[in-house]
Amino acid sequence: MDIIKPRTLSGFMELLPAKQAQFEKMTQILRDTYAAYGFAPLDTPVLEDAQILLAKGGGDTEKQIYRFSKGDNDLAMRFDLTVPLAKYVALHYNDLVFPFRRYQIGKVYRGERPQRGRFREFYQADIDIVGDGKLDTMNEAEIPAIICKIFRGFGLRRFQIRVNNRKILTGFYAMLGLEEKSGDIMRTVDKLEKIGPDKVAAILVEDCGITPAQASEILHFTNLSGDNADVLSALESYAGRNEIFDLGLAELQAVTGNLAAFGVPQENFAVDLTIARGLDYYTGTVYETTLLDYPEIGSVCSGGRYDNLAGYYIDRPLPGVGISIGLTRLFFVLDDLGLFNPDLPTAPADALVLPMTAQPGAAIALAEDLRSAGLRVQLYGEQKKFKQKLAYADKLGVPFAVLLGEDELAQGKCSVKNMTTGEQVTLPAQEAAQYIAAALAEKDGPLILEKSNGR
Amino acid sequence: MDIIKPRTLSGFMELLPAKQAQFEKMTQILRDTYAAYGFAPLDTPVLEDAQILLAKGGGDTEKQIYRFSKGDNDLAMRFDLTVPLAKYVALHYNDLVFPFRRYQIGKVYRGERPQRGRFREFYQADIDIVGDGKLDTMNEAEIPAIICKIFRGFGLRRFQIRVNNRKILTGFYAMLGLEEKSGDIMRTVDKLEKIGPDKVAAILVEDCGITPAQASEILHFTNLSGDNADVLSALESYAGRNEIFDLGLAELQAVTGNLAAFGVPQENFAVDLTIARGLDYYTGTVYETTLLDYPEIGSVCSGGRYDNLAGYYIDRPLPGVGISIGLTRLFFVLDDLGLFNPDLPTAPADALVLPMTAQPGAAIALAEDLRSAGLRVQLYGEQKKFKQKLAYADKLGVPFAVLLGEDELAQGKCSVKNMTTGEQVTLPAQEAAQYIAAALAEKDGPLILEKSNGR
Repeated sequence: MDIIKPRTLSGFMELLPAKQAQFEKMTQILRDTYAAYGFAPLDTPVLEDAQILLAKGGGDTEKQIYRFSKGDNDLAMRFDLTVPLAKYVALHYNDLVFPFRRYQIGKVYRGERPQRGRFREFYQADIDIVGDGKLDTMNEAEIPAIICKIFRGFGLRRFQIRVNNRKILTGFYAMLGLEEKSGDIMRTVDKLEKIGPDKVAAILVEDCGITPAQASEILHFTNLSGDNADVLSALESYAGRNEIFDLGLAELQAVTGNLAAFGVPQENFAVDLTIARGLDYYTGTVYETTLLDYPEIGSVCSGGRYDNLAGYYIDRPLPGVGISIGLTRLFFVLDDLGLFNPDLPTAPADALVLPMTAQPGAAIALAEDLRSAGLRVQLYGEQKKFKQKLAYADKLGVPFAVLLGEDELAQGKCSVKNMTTGEQVTLPAQEAAQYIAAALAEKDGPLILEKSNGR
Repeated sequence: MDIIKPRTLSGFMELLPAKQAQFEKMTQILRDTYAAYGFAPLDTPVLEDAQILLAKGGGDTEKQIYRFSKGDNDLAMRFDLTVPLAKYVALHYNDLVFPFRRYQIGKVYRGERPQRGRFREFYQADIDIVGDGKLDTMNEAEIPAIICKIFRGFGLRRFQIRVNNRKILTGFYAMLGLEEKSGDIMRTVDKLEKIGPDKVAAILVEDCGITPAQASEILHFTNLSGDNADVLSALESYAGRNEIFDLGLAELQAVTGNLAAFGVPQENFAVDLTIARGLDYYTGTVYETTLLDYPEIGSVCSGGRYDNLAGYYIDRPLPGVGISIGLTRLFFVLDDLGLFNPDLPTAPADALVLPMTAQPGAAIALAEDLRSAGLRVQLYGEQKKFKQKLAYADKLGVPFAVLLGEDELAQGKCSVKNMTTGEQVTLPAQEAAQYIAAALAEKDGPLILEKSNGR
């Protein structure tokens, strides 16, 4: 047979089993957290009618999209989870209950130029809360709690959820008589962290056509800092001069007002007037999340409030708020930084049962008993020498080997060997299961281990 | 704005939230069961190099595949999970530990003519155990235990795992001097259930070119029935006449010999000599699984033993055994038959917290407390009348509403309203969480409810 050299396309992540186990743990934390906040899981097709997916059209999206024909169909692979959500909500509008809260963790596709850490197929993990006509600010206030629960669930402590409100920016620009240029200014200011204040000022003056004095006022405003209370009171000094500004300030106060009740620690949250998000889609609260020790990664969880989710598909205002985590990239970066806790087992089984008698019946039944007790158990069926069997457990990283020989059988027990310490105890099946479960619980710890002093 | 009528492509399943919740429960049972048997989760790209995916080439696959170019790449969407597994094992051969056990639950794509119950995008849920050069029969013996655990996990009792061994068939045909025609005969006999013995005999004589007497012997052999012991002892009467046959019989004995230890009830298992599977790929044990009350669905979980997983990609024999569940179709059929347990909650939350005081802080903290106790809790943030808030809980099917008004606040308690019975109790947060958890545990039951007398 002719051999074709196997390969995986570049830009497509394909993990070895141990890393896949870590990835699955991240996914499980996301699913559990989203579910804990009452979001319904949603699954939409990867392939959609290209006309529908590109209703908004234009820009990089159109260039990057995987689009093709089959039969009469003009097909495209989804490039995010927001457009499919908009389609879903418009299509099933009459069957949904609003506010509609959904989470979706799924693969999306962008045919970008491949480069290290950029993927053409990657997971997004999104939540959105979509109202019918109206949606209370309380929903925006809840989002930081969810972000916080997720990142703390991963084991991270040194992260910051940075929040702003685009109405505050729009209102402030209006105070300077620059309401017409609001979008351009915001997109420029959004680059502050990337290119620094001098270049932002230059672009504001040269490209946006505002005066140097205005640019300087904008940068001064954007620079208001301190703890949340300081920034909020500085903002209050601008109140009463523009309606949009006042509305944005009230929303920001609502979002920041109940952080303690939501269980969000002060150190994980900051009002940050530099956050604008590039997209005009957002109309109020905007969120970014940064890892404090790794600012160069940029935001690892972003989103915001929007007023019109599905205007391309339905003639009805559907305001909402949502966030998105680029899961594949986040995983890549955390792994690249070496932050995954090396002490957590990544083996597919908690225990490997090694039959050591002529008849395998007792070992089979033992494996089933250990499974009934909640353990993940592999029965090793190969005819190999004892040493090779243990070497297999070792290579897989299975934490416990369970041996069943004639001696154990005669006693109605089994021997449990701790593969890390070499320690071995002989116990009846039920006690063996408890012993293993207790030892695993002791090994348990955070998925991500922050290096204690940054890096 | 111009409105584009939203639609989802035909042949692509897109579920409403309540049905999605049922689908997720099926997926969870599959994941948990596969993990309990020590299979590692695997995730491979949906898109692969078309040359690699089509290494085997030919047939319906090539016609049905979604294949397209982007830049210099000749791309295709995977049409099953077996070819990507073969590629994965060959590509990462040096980094894997054998036997390599993996499960994969993922979407695959086939551009078939759409018809009711057939999907162009559908989930397969596969497991495979792949050996390096050798793989013990014990692995084949374990598969029925896993199938049984899954279908019993769904709540089904009236299903049958039907097992055969292709070596037995090949050996028997050889006894008749028909070894050359083995493949053709097997593919014909495999249609027995679909087209009946007369048509099978006719095809055997007319198309396969064997004598009517041989056809009749084949049908007699295939028809050997009774309980497992009867069939096995009938088979033993053929032993000693052909080596391949004897090998197959020994394998079948190994697979059936430890069913009790594996916890597979007699009634869920049958040796069935009519099972051949159409694919030449399989070389030994083959499995099918039928729902006894719905034989017209055909097999809902099939697979078998193969000798050469990845011959197209690597010059090394990689024998294995695997099964596949067509999850999307199985879900569609079970739903279509109305078998999902209507009493299981499908709401995204266990409890809906309704703030009824001016300040939402206490309600927010209460929701967080209930979540910490393990409940899925939605905080209802909209400014609506009490009646409308309850109507929302009702429409979503949330089993409990948790009310927090001034009275409850003064007592340090909350009121828990059972949305089914209308019953209401007032309790401190921790007790409320326990009360809800206990009531939910009581509501728990099988995901699928078999109708007691078949249909």
